Amino acid sequence: MKEAYYAVIFTSIQTGEDIDGYNAMGERIDALAKEQDGYLGMDNARDSRTGLGITISYWRDMEAIRAWRGNAEHEVAQRLGKEVWYQSYRLRVSKVVRDYSFEKDSNDVTAEM
Amino acid sequence: MKEAYYAVIFTSIQTGEDIDGYNAMGERIDALAKEQDGYLGMDNARDSRTGLGITISYWRDMEAIRAWRGNAEHEVAQRLGKEVWYQSYRLRVSKVVRDYSFEKDSNDVTAEM
Repeated sequence: MKEAYYAVIFTSIQTGEDIDGYNAMGERIDALAKEQDGYLGMDNARDSRTGLGITISYWRDMEAIRAWRGNAEHEVAQRLGKEVWYQSYRLRVSKVVRDYSFEKDSNDVTAEM
Repeated sequence: MKEAYYAVIFTSIQTGEDIDGYNAMGERIDALAKEQDGYLGMDNARDSRTGLGITISYWRDMEAIRAWRGNAEHEVAQRLGKEVWYQSYRLRVSKVVRDYSFEKDSNDVTAEM
């Protein structure tokens, strides 16, 4: 049984403006997130058909999420996101209460929580 | 202030086998989910570069999630997923505790929870 942890679910549609700047900032922000205390990991996918992007970052607790939200460089990225890169987004903070994983080789589902 | 609700986060890597069957089942399962009591919506993206798929479905409560998990047709899909379609997956059930959205036209972030 692991400790409960948090998932920050960020879904977005881009404006299509300044894609190079967006990608460069994305790499910088991902690297910065990894250095944060309480960072547990990230899943990211952007669907080329619909344009919907989903980024989920995982955190130890709400305090870690608040610290990341208030990080100075991250705040710059958030501002540019609203001003330039995102047509719309939605950000949900959620507490993970069940966690299962499956690997084909082990051919079994394991419950981690 | 809305009621709290739940997000089921499903991240997956496909084997690449039986893509047509997978896509047909995906459409059927999405349609079936929409008919379920307590279904609130879905976000889906598969990244063509990394192959990572993320599907997040939103539910009123844990009871609705359990009912959907036990749906007979959905159970068939889950079994085929393990046997044929997925190399690996991870399924997290989480409780949404904060919910913000941004639309460029309104130029403002609104907190819904």
